[in-house]
Amino acid sequence: MASRPHPFAELIDLAVTPDGKGESVASLVVDQKHMNPHGVVHGAVIYALADTGMGAALYPTLEAGQACATIEIKISYFRPVSGGKLRCATQVDNKGRNIAHLTSRIELDGKLVALATGSFAILAAPPVSR
Amino acid sequence: MASRPHPFAELIDLAVTPDGKGESVASLVVDQKHMNPHGVVHGAVIYALADTGMGAALYPTLEAGQACATIEIKISYFRPVSGGKLRCATQVDNKGRNIAHLTSRIELDGKLVALATGSFAILAAPPVSR
Amino acid sequence: MASRPHPFAELIDLAVTPDGKGESVASLVVDQKHMNPHGVVHGAVIYALADTGMGAALYPTLEAGQACATIEIKISYFRPVSGGKLRCATQVDNKGRNIAHLTSRIELDGKLVALATGSFAILAAPPVSR
Amino acid sequence: MASRPHPFAELIDLAVTPDGKGESVASLVVDQKHMNPHGVVHGAVIYALADTGMGAALYPTLEAGQACATIEIKISYFRPVSGGKLRCATQVDNKGRNIAHLTSRIELDGKLVALATGSFAILAAPPVSR
Repeated sequence: MASRPHPFAELIDLAVTPDGKGESVASLVVDQKHMNPHGVVHGAVIYALADTGMGAALYPTLEAGQACATIEIKISYFRPVSGGKLRCATQVDNKGRNIAHLTSRIELDGKLVALATGSFAILAAPPVSR
Repeated sequence: MASRPHPFAELIDLAVTPDGKGESVASLVVDQKHMNPHGVVHGAVIYALADTGMGAALYPTLEAGQACATIEIKISYFRPVSGGKLRCATQVDNKGRNIAHLTSRIELDGKLVALATGSFAILAAPPVSR
Repeated sequence: MASRPHPFAELIDLAVTPDGKGESVASLVVDQKHMNPHGVVHGAVIYALADTGMGAALYPTLEAGQACATIEIKISYFRPVSGGKLRCATQVDNKGRNIAHLTSRIELDGKLVALATGSFAILAAPPVSR
Repeated sequence: MASRPHPFAELIDLAVTPDGKGESVASLVVDQKHMNPHGVVHGAVIYALADTGMGAALYPTLEAGQACATIEIKISYFRPVSGGKLRCATQVDNKGRNIAHLTSRIELDGKLVALATGSFAILAAPPVSR
């Protein structure tokens, strides 16, 4: 997964590192392009850290022939962000046979700026097209 | 609000039109840059339509001197998107004194691809800095 | 399903009527026993209308040999309830192969008091034990 | 708060103990009356542990003259419960001026059965009627 191109992550300068055992760290240095009209980082940028981080945390725990897809994510925002490096730590809270639940904590300088929880479907992966 | 620059909306080619009475329509033509490593639109792009659409629906209903901020949004995904024009219709479901609740429906060719609900805080706006 | 005893629904006087085609109506007349210490209906009573209503809306749309289970529900509250008859209208928004998404609107005297959205897993039912 | 009657908690045998510093523990011994038609504990019973536990965790952290109200709670279920003692540990994740965010973890015999996150409004309390 890490070796495949990820156009949207490149567009917003998002980097993500799975640990292979159900956790990941995603990060992003805030830039002018991430801003909304009020001069703070758009909520979707912070959301992208969580969504990408959840996939990266879960994916390496799957068996061969499995894939995963986001069912839903809820994200809560605690303070506006106008600059700095955002860090998102994600963990798998529970992994059932068909569904996994994950939590992402997004921080700036050690302060919690947002928290997200998500449900992912664990699926039999479609065969790779050739 | 429409006249202020919106760098993140420009980055992802997102357009939004409030109707001034608690509804909005946001849209985006899918491009290669929106993709995740699996060749489908990143969830955060779809989320951006909802988050931006909710702000645009609510903002014009506020009184002078009020601002709004996302408390939380939950988004559910129903099918992957690999191309076409995404359209997100948002409405205010309930507006209390301090909190508003909104729903966004994201469609592609008339098919529901995602649904989001969000809570927004209605705040006294800070004075504009000069 | 309607013919099986439902102890918790009886405990809180909850009635639910599926229409067989993806919708249901649940209702409950507020009583002293539903109250929290602040003299208003406990949030879990209102939640029960949504959770039960979602199951009742979805269940009749399943094929023989399928069952369903709540993955998650988010409920938002708009005003306190101190008496009267609560009515919860639920609909299936989307039904995929493995997951369904539903919305419940809970009203009192035609006023929206809460709104819930939920994800349900559609499963192969376990054989009935004998 | 602990001294006021709580009819709904009594109805479902729910006990809750705040620690006064932003955490609480709620518990409940599963009984026949908590069951749904499938012979497992109704989701609303588990939800009640989280909703009540969140209020109990937050309330003692408020200043004199403040009250709180649930804006929204999302609860995710991981496994069915058919008996035993449910334990719900709740903590305040973030407390802003107007909004607090809480997480509840519901366990049975040390196993996570559900996880909930919620947003609460912090309000100026209405004067006590006499």
